[in-house]
Amino acid sequence: MLRLYDMLSSGNAYKVRLLLWQLAMPFERIEMDILKGETRTAEFLAINANGRAPTVVLPGGEIFPESNAILWYFAEGTPYPPADRLGRAQVLRWMLFEQYSHEPYLAVARFWLHFPGVLNDKRRAQLPDKQKGGYAALDAMERHLAAHEFFVNRRYSLADIALYAYTHVADEDGFDLSRYPAIQAWLARVRAQPRHVPITEERSPT
Amino acid sequence: MLRLYDMLSSGNAYKVRLLLWQLAMPFERIEMDILKGETRTAEFLAINANGRAPTVVLPGGEIFPESNAILWYFAEGTPYPPADRLGRAQVLRWMLFEQYSHEPYLAVARFWLHFPGVLNDKRRAQLPDKQKGGYAALDAMERHLAAHEFFVNRRYSLADIALYAYTHVADEDGFDLSRYPAIQAWLARVRAQPRHVPITEERSPT
Repeated sequence: MLRLYDMLSSGNAYKVRLLLWQLAMPFERIEMDILKGETRTAEFLAINANGRAPTVVLPGGEIFPESNAILWYFAEGTPYPPADRLGRAQVLRWMLFEQYSHEPYLAVARFWLHFPGVLNDKRRAQLPDKQKGGYAALDAMERHLAAHEFFVNRRYSLADIALYAYTHVADEDGFDLSRYPAIQAWLARVRAQPRHVPITEERSPT
Repeated sequence: MLRLYDMLSSGNAYKVRLLLWQLAMPFERIEMDILKGETRTAEFLAINANGRAPTVVLPGGEIFPESNAILWYFAEGTPYPPADRLGRAQVLRWMLFEQYSHEPYLAVARFWLHFPGVLNDKRRAQLPDKQKGGYAALDAMERHLAAHEFFVNRRYSLADIALYAYTHVADEDGFDLSRYPAIQAWLARVRAQPRHVPITEERSPT
């Protein structure tokens, strides 16, 4: 069976769980405790030298890190990446935006604020920069979503899964989503997709 | 004709030029001067609201930012992304590594050190963190390349183009590449590919 090295509180890990639910693909879930250093043990570094979750081990033994590459792998041949070349590249464009201009701010702010003891003085001093960068990413999303129902080709795709992950919990992490009506309406459209599961879902589909 | 909003000193922009040369695709090049604010004019923001080069405008008018998404678009149907599903996802994995764990350190250090007047006191204080992150990315590449001729499937692909861009000029930007023999051998293999052009190549293929 597919093995998923997971972290329930991580949006990156949630992306993978959400897609596997929507594809009805069962998986074995192994929760990693980052604060206990479980992603840095010799055993885990032998699986992923970069020491990060989510990491997937396929039934054939192939190992995959990088949440958005995992999404791409499982979604090929399904409706989640568009069938047209331009649409596929636009999905990648938004997934790259997510990893470059969105996740480094919203996910890092989440990590610092979500876990007790993680927010030291050095990080506290950097928090305003993280919030500024996070709001810039939300502003860019709001501009796009004001004119588009979903990110690409007017239908739900991997781009929506990738961007939903940290956006839908941003209010837990110090971001005020009430100023973003287009984002809020899009969050509701994503939640309304068939087989949607929340970030707290620990079970595998059967 | 294809229009490329370009910056000669940018590794991200060079990725696109290198691939277009290798695919023998002519383009019209428009050099953007970031220090003169040319990526932030109302005219350019109307093309790319995120205000970044490289940005491509296709003959049909479709607009594309994000260097690695641009690579993916032009390379579909060519040998540069692998023909197998696992290989394609591994290429994406390394392109995402490049944008998340490599470019934010090496490209930012390059920008700060390469342009006169850009390295202010605040940035100078952050330079050690940028160098630490850059060396961590180079370490990960060295470990992989010690056992692999190219990043994926033993052949040159978009993953190599994406990672070559800022790695091959890292020694100009304060990184000591002499400690990385596997990276150096790989850089030479990339340079030996057919129709390779250097980062200074301003012309379009004809």
